[in-house]
Amino acid sequence: MPQPDHISKLGQPDQSELDEDLRQIFAKCVEKLGFVPNVLAAYSLRPQRLRNFMTTYNEIMLSPSGLSKLEREMVAVVVSSANRCYYCLVAHGAAVRQLSGDPELGEMLALNYRVAQLDPRERLMLDFAWKLTTTPHLVDDSDRDALSQQGLSQEDIFDLAETVAFFNLSNRMASATDMIPNREYHQQMRVAPPLSDH
Amino acid sequence: MPQPDHISKLGQPDQSELDEDLRQIFAKCVEKLGFVPNVLAAYSLRPQRLRNFMTTYNEIMLSPSGLSKLEREMVAVVVSSANRCYYCLVAHGAAVRQLSGDPELGEMLALNYRVAQLDPRERLMLDFAWKLTTTPHLVDDSDRDALSQQGLSQEDIFDLAETVAFFNLSNRMASATDMIPNREYHQQMRVAPPLSDH
Amino acid sequence: MPQPDHISKLGQPDQSELDEDLRQIFAKCVEKLGFVPNVLAAYSLRPQRLRNFMTTYNEIMLSPSGLSKLEREMVAVVVSSANRCYYCLVAHGAAVRQLSGDPELGEMLALNYRVAQLDPRERLMLDFAWKLTTTPHLVDDSDRDALSQQGLSQEDIFDLAETVAFFNLSNRMASATDMIPNREYHQQMRVAPPLSDH
Amino acid sequence: MPQPDHISKLGQPDQSELDEDLRQIFAKCVEKLGFVPNVLAAYSLRPQRLRNFMTTYNEIMLSPSGLSKLEREMVAVVVSSANRCYYCLVAHGAAVRQLSGDPELGEMLALNYRVAQLDPRERLMLDFAWKLTTTPHLVDDSDRDALSQQGLSQEDIFDLAETVAFFNLSNRMASATDMIPNREYHQQMRVAPPLSDH
Amino acid sequence: MPQPDHISKLGQPDQSELDEDLRQIFAKCVEKLGFVPNVLAAYSLRPQRLRNFMTTYNEIMLSPSGLSKLEREMVAVVVSSANRCYYCLVAHGAAVRQLSGDPELGEMLALNYRVAQLDPRERLMLDFAWKLTTTPHLVDDSDRDALSQQGLSQEDIFDLAETVAFFNLSNRMASATDMIPNREYHQQMRVAPPLSDH
Amino acid sequence: MPQPDHISKLGQPDQSELDEDLRQIFAKCVEKLGFVPNVLAAYSLRPQRLRNFMTTYNEIMLSPSGLSKLEREMVAVVVSSANRCYYCLVAHGAAVRQLSGDPELGEMLALNYRVAQLDPRERLMLDFAWKLTTTPHLVDDSDRDALSQQGLSQEDIFDLAETVAFFNLSNRMASATDMIPNREYHQQMRVAPPLSDH
Repeated sequence: MPQPDHISKLGQPDQSELDEDLRQIFAKCVEKLGFVPNVLAAYSLRPQRLRNFMTTYNEIMLSPSGLSKLEREMVAVVVSSANRCYYCLVAHGAAVRQLSGDPELGEMLALNYRVAQLDPRERLMLDFAWKLTTTPHLVDDSDRDALSQQGLSQEDIFDLAETVAFFNLSNRMASATDMIPNREYHQQMRVAPPLSDH
Repeated sequence: MPQPDHISKLGQPDQSELDEDLRQIFAKCVEKLGFVPNVLAAYSLRPQRLRNFMTTYNEIMLSPSGLSKLEREMVAVVVSSANRCYYCLVAHGAAVRQLSGDPELGEMLALNYRVAQLDPRERLMLDFAWKLTTTPHLVDDSDRDALSQQGLSQEDIFDLAETVAFFNLSNRMASATDMIPNREYHQQMRVAPPLSDH
Repeated sequence: MPQPDHISKLGQPDQSELDEDLRQIFAKCVEKLGFVPNVLAAYSLRPQRLRNFMTTYNEIMLSPSGLSKLEREMVAVVVSSANRCYYCLVAHGAAVRQLSGDPELGEMLALNYRVAQLDPRERLMLDFAWKLTTTPHLVDDSDRDALSQQGLSQEDIFDLAETVAFFNLSNRMASATDMIPNREYHQQMRVAPPLSDH
Repeated sequence: MPQPDHISKLGQPDQSELDEDLRQIFAKCVEKLGFVPNVLAAYSLRPQRLRNFMTTYNEIMLSPSGLSKLEREMVAVVVSSANRCYYCLVAHGAAVRQLSGDPELGEMLALNYRVAQLDPRERLMLDFAWKLTTTPHLVDDSDRDALSQQGLSQEDIFDLAETVAFFNLSNRMASATDMIPNREYHQQMRVAPPLSDH
Repeated sequence: MPQPDHISKLGQPDQSELDEDLRQIFAKCVEKLGFVPNVLAAYSLRPQRLRNFMTTYNEIMLSPSGLSKLEREMVAVVVSSANRCYYCLVAHGAAVRQLSGDPELGEMLALNYRVAQLDPRERLMLDFAWKLTTTPHLVDDSDRDALSQQGLSQEDIFDLAETVAFFNLSNRMASATDMIPNREYHQQMRVAPPLSDH
Repeated sequence: MPQPDHISKLGQPDQSELDEDLRQIFAKCVEKLGFVPNVLAAYSLRPQRLRNFMTTYNEIMLSPSGLSKLEREMVAVVVSSANRCYYCLVAHGAAVRQLSGDPELGEMLALNYRVAQLDPRERLMLDFAWKLTTTPHLVDDSDRDALSQQGLSQEDIFDLAETVAFFNLSNRMASATDMIPNREYHQQMRVAPPLSDH
């Protein structure tokens, strides 16, 4: 069965036509990852919006925070699972496999995070992610209090909330454009490394 | 009944402690609007994230686009209605009243947009906003094709999708922090101006 | 944007053609409120049903009861919010603003009552109203017991239930006929009176 | 297994303590039906509300209308099925069996009306009843137009809508009070009469 | 109103054309029940699948188990209620009436099991049946633990789960084929036997 | 993060204690697959039920039918996606990758089948699987007719329906027991074979 060969159903400019700053970023992606993530190519239809998206993404996912990078990726996957977003589940499922060194964990979070054996802090954050995604109008003090009791500071709760909120944005951009993930993600870290690598 | 007197349940720094650039922006808000929108105060708990939020907001809501500013505000209100987000319904409901000069239109969009008499392009955009918000996994080619047939370019569809996606982000930030809108919004443009003002 | 100019999509007789008793009631409305509420005009398509509707309405909303008139209006708004009923949200949102002297309270109840700061009795009644509206088959002894423990008598619980039930009726009449509220409601009590008026 | 022996969980006065007019009505019920329907006993906790309920009920279910009495009972059952209301399904399921002379029809409507073989007018009315019950905010011109095309006048659509609306009220009164139907209903018309009786 | 006269919308072979073993089973049904249950006739379109279905059914519903036959039938009805399956509600509602000797119990379970007065073990099993049917992905240790605490062994929980699971299969076969139950079920045990029969 | 090391939360007997016929089957699994699928080990808590499960499974998934084995596996995955069943998504996702030689197709079907490029027959069968799983009470003649028009015989529709129905059974057994899939599935066919292998 031939699978989709588009990046975004809205199309995108040829990369050679992009502004110099964007071409440099894309070159850096190829250097580091081996490819330009399709979300960036899809967003290049609107270059200034692409710049803002990358700035926001980098701050939320990579800047210093009380949440580890793995925790943020776990949140990304659970939000995308609630929204059944193919692009983000593939791309961030791979990230969870890589950061955790656990090829099954990404699958569990993508398919039904409740089957994973998580410590209480992680489980609470993922329950919050699911609730804020599916019934945001029901979030209340009891949810914030439970996170505080697990040791999250007000800034940590803010960062958690913004991670959830951001993937509710990006899931919808992926669905609205029928964005297809790069094939490379599918094969990443499917086998757990030997224990000495941990 | 005493109503909430917090801005965000996560708290926020005193404005005098903010970086110079943020203080200047807040001063400008007071100058132009008479107040600092509470969403900005709430976001100032995490200053760099506030900067990114404002940059993204301004691009999506105010930059040149095939969608008018009123159309973008209408989308904001319908997304917020689907998510039952109090903050965004109050703030952007006021914006719809102001930009349209029609005090009832904001109410209709906030409460059930299907009762408003809209031209087919507007109605289609709002139906798309509702669907992309509530069942993003069901959006498909037929939705994009219908928008194209109403004259939206690929860039217009991108901008529409990002407006929907962005309010799915900001609705969740408001719900996660129990953000309360500035009281000023409630009174804005409750009476239609005389016709000569249109 | 021109907004709807109909009262009900099913039409209604000219008021001059109504029976004498109904014309007198309508005249009294104009005298007291300045207008005939559109729900009465819409119902006049079926005069005997209009009479019954008014009798039931007056008993439920205005007769002596353990629930205050403001509490009954608050319930009306929360039921109408669950059902996304434009007519009732506009008309009874105005009533909440008037009876409470609090222009924001009506907005909160219409958009997401969980953001309002309510005393436990009120909050419990509104939670009950939401549940009885959206999942009536799940109401059970624990719900009735909780209301009793807040001091409601059996008669009070009956009156609360009938208020919820009645707006589930009237919301559906409004939706079925696309009933449009009188414009006057939109402007009522948008600014809180000076404190001495309370 | 002992089954419930209450009429309403809120209790009700002894019938001998009721006002004369209500006692006469109850006596007439016993004369005609063999029993006082429990909904009336349950409502007698609030006598004036009982009077209004009976007046409204009689007008909607028994007065001259473009809808036959069987059609109104069919609507009652389908609304009650959507709301999973035990009391109304038992009482009005029996009424459908009696009025139609078809012991299976009441079962079909109570359990899943889509399996019944209905003429297009009936099916359309029942689809409308389901939609107005479960998603009233989505009812629009296309629904009203479809009913008109099946020959319903504006008054007929009004009567249909009010029947749906009324059972959304009474279903909630039954659920709120855990009203238990009289046992007599269960046995009524379980076997189809010989053809000559039709 | 003429009611459906088909057994399955997919049709089925004439019973005289079936293999000998199946004809013998059908003859035994007539002998014991007075008729061949339509589910067997419908399944005979695919004879080997019919054999497997009967084997599975007999093991789950009739073999020795920590769950009584009545309990298994009660589970069957509640699952079918959640799925609004007409065939199974009629056939297994009759079985509940027969096995319990209580003509109302089957009605309660079919229409809204929460109104029945059940002992805690039964209520817990039916709550589990509802949850495993409607939100299987949310079942977790707390559900299994609650069943254990009511005295169910691991094997009992397995049998309960498989009963729920099996009716989720058979409900869907009935819906997919529009299977119509034999008329005989409707009249079975509509009147409670005199007490001495219990 | 340590992942689950149980097979079923209800436990299972040591394989050496099983009856001879089951031990032989398990030995054959090891010979052919390299392992005993955990669903069989979990079911061995109730040996006769295990036998019936295997018989039914083999008939539905492996016997001659108008549906290809790949089509049946695709249906299995889409049903399991609707029910968010971790076990079946992992095990049958691997089967789709193997039978199709397309490592991405299994992912697409597990996460959101609507993004896959399917021929109309396949898409229709998967849409039917989703509908029969999530809203069985809404399946009607129009669904069956659409399948007929795509060339499915009555027997093919039966087989499709039973495949859907069977995974609604097995998904619930997996959820009820918290069944964990064998780790081997995760690594199977993650890279597409060179074209000459097809």
